[in-house]
Amino acid sequence: MIASIEVLETIISKNIKLDHPLEMIIFSNEEGALLGSRALAGKINEGTLMVKTVSGYTNGEGVNRIGGDSNKIFEVKRAQGDIHAFLEMHIEQGNKLYKNNIDIGIVEGIVGLKWWDVNIYGFANHAGTTPMSDRKDGMIAAAQFILMVNKVVNSFEGAQVGTVGRIAAKPGVPNVIPGFVNLSLELRDLSSKKIQDMFNLINQNAKIIAQKTSTKIEFEPIDATGDPALMDKRIMNIIKEASEDFKYSAQVMPSGAGHDAQDMALIAPTAMIFVPSRDGISHSPEEFTSFEMIYKGANVLLNTIVELDKTKLD
Amino acid sequence: MIASIEVLETIISKNIKLDHPLEMIIFSNEEGALLGSRALAGKINEGTLMVKTVSGYTNGEGVNRIGGDSNKIFEVKRAQGDIHAFLEMHIEQGNKLYKNNIDIGIVEGIVGLKWWDVNIYGFANHAGTTPMSDRKDGMIAAAQFILMVNKVVNSFEGAQVGTVGRIAAKPGVPNVIPGFVNLSLELRDLSSKKIQDMFNLINQNAKIIAQKTSTKIEFEPIDATGDPALMDKRIMNIIKEASEDFKYSAQVMPSGAGHDAQDMALIAPTAMIFVPSRDGISHSPEEFTSFEMIYKGANVLLNTIVELDKTKLD
Repeated sequence: MIASIEVLETIISKNIKLDHPLEMIIFSNEEGALLGSRALAGKINEGTLMVKTVSGYTNGEGVNRIGGDSNKIFEVKRAQGDIHAFLEMHIEQGNKLYKNNIDIGIVEGIVGLKWWDVNIYGFANHAGTTPMSDRKDGMIAAAQFILMVNKVVNSFEGAQVGTVGRIAAKPGVPNVIPGFVNLSLELRDLSSKKIQDMFNLINQNAKIIAQKTSTKIEFEPIDATGDPALMDKRIMNIIKEASEDFKYSAQVMPSGAGHDAQDMALIAPTAMIFVPSRDGISHSPEEFTSFEMIYKGANVLLNTIVELDKTKLD
Repeated sequence: MIASIEVLETIISKNIKLDHPLEMIIFSNEEGALLGSRALAGKINEGTLMVKTVSGYTNGEGVNRIGGDSNKIFEVKRAQGDIHAFLEMHIEQGNKLYKNNIDIGIVEGIVGLKWWDVNIYGFANHAGTTPMSDRKDGMIAAAQFILMVNKVVNSFEGAQVGTVGRIAAKPGVPNVIPGFVNLSLELRDLSSKKIQDMFNLINQNAKIIAQKTSTKIEFEPIDATGDPALMDKRIMNIIKEASEDFKYSAQVMPSGAGHDAQDMALIAPTAMIFVPSRDGISHSPEEFTSFEMIYKGANVLLNTIVELDKTKLD
C-alpha cells in the first residue's frame, strides 16, 4: 500500500501524463474470502452474502456492520473490457526471493488449491492386550499416508506443494489403539491437471496402505477449491524490462498464496510484482520487508504503469 | 464374577471342606485406578484421596458420594502373610486364546507400562508459499516418529507392545504447516528393563528424525507408570495341572492389561486364570465370552482352589 501511494504521489509530483485513468483500490476482506475482488469480478451472489462466517455473522451482515450496504454490493461489478490492466504488488510470503537475494518476483500465476478430508477407519482396541500383529491401527495408516503424500508431491517436477495440517485420532487416549483418524489434505499448483495427477497417485497409494494396515481410507472433497489464475504474459514482460532498466535481479515465479489478482484476472489483463519477505515468514508478528526492498518494488511498479499506459493489450 | 459365585455355590452344595477361609471380593473401581485393590494392598494415602478425577470430584469425595467413608478406607489394608493366596479369573481382552482355540490362559505376570508425552517442535508457516524443501514440518516428523516406534517395538523378541494413541497438531488447519505436534507414547512389557531398552532406542532414533526434519523432539514422562507384577509360579503350576485334569488346552501368557491381581501380588501369592474373548474385543458392546468358555474357566478355578488349600506356600 505504501508503495502504491508513493507511486501515485510520484506520478502527480513529477507531472507524468497518462492516457488511461489510474485508480488505486484497497480491497476489503483481502485476508478472508477475497469478498471485495470477487464482488468486482462479479463472482458473488445472494448465496455468498448468506454464508455464516466464524464471527457468527453472515457475509452480508458483516458488510452492513462495518458501515457498508449489502444491497448495493452487486453494483460494484466491472465488466470484461472496462479495465485496461490490473497490477498488484505484494510481499512474497515465501523464502525464494529472500534466500537467493533476488529483488523482484514476476508472478506467472496464482496456484489453484484443492482440499480433502481424509478418513481412516481402523479398529479401536485395548493397547495392552492386542498383540502388535493383530492391530488395525488407524494411527499407523495415517503416518504412512502423511509420508506417502510428501513423497508423491516431491516426485513431481516444479513448485507444487502438498500439506497435511490437521489431524485427529479417536478415541484419542494413550492406552487405546486409534480406530479412526481424520486428517486434511491440501494440494496446490499452477496447473489443475498436475493437482489431479498428484491426487490420483495419492489415491492409488492410499489403497495399498489401507490393504497393508487392514484399514479403510476414504477421501471427501472440501468445498474450498480455487482454480489456478494465470498472469498476463505481456505485462510480465513489461515488469521484466522495468526490473532490467533499474538493474534489479528478477525471477519469474508462481504465487502459492491466494490474492485479489486471481479474481481480477477474470475480467482484465492482470499481473503481480513480489518483493522479498525476510526468512519467508508471513501472517506472523515476525513478518518483515525492508524499505529498500519496498522501494525497489515501487520503482518497478511505477515504470510498469507508465509503460503499460502506452501498450495496447486487446 | 458368575464363575466365582458358581465355584462358591459348588463348594457349599458339594460340602467340600477347606482348611482356609475362602473369601470372594468384588473390588470397586476395577476399571478406574484400581483404588479398591490398592487400598487393600496399602498402596494409597491421603494424597491419593485428594486426586481430582474427570468426574470433577476427588477420589475421596467419590468414595463418600457412593455411600462409603473415605476416613475408614485405610482400615481395609491387609498385611503380608494375612492371605494364603489370591486368585483372579478374567477374560483375556486379547486374541491369543480365541484365535488359537485355547481354553485357559495361565497368566505369568501383568505387564508394566510407561507413558510419555512427546512434543515435536517444527515451524508453522504458510502451506501455499513455503517450498517443500524449506519446511520444518512437525507433522512429517510425527509420522516418521510413529512408524519408528512401531518398528522399534517389533524389533524385540516377545509380547511387548507400543502404542501412539493420541495426537494433536497446531495450529491444526489445512493451509498451515504444523509448527507443533503433541502425541502420546505408551510401552508395555513384563520386564521393566525391556521397557527401558525400547525407550532408549526410541529416544536415539527420535534424535535422528529431529535432525533430518529440522525439528526438535522432547519426551515428558507421564505419571501413569505401573511396575510389572509377576504371578506365583507354584500357583501357575496348580492351574496347569487342573487344566490337564480336565483335558483343557492351556497356555502361559502375560496380561497386557492391568488387574487387581497386580496389587494383590504385593501382599500375597497371586495368580490369574484367563478365558478367551471373542475376536479379542473388550471394553466395547462387542465384548463376548461364551458360557462354555466361562464354564471351563470355573472348573479350573474350583480345582485350583481345592488344590491350593492343601498346598503349603510359605
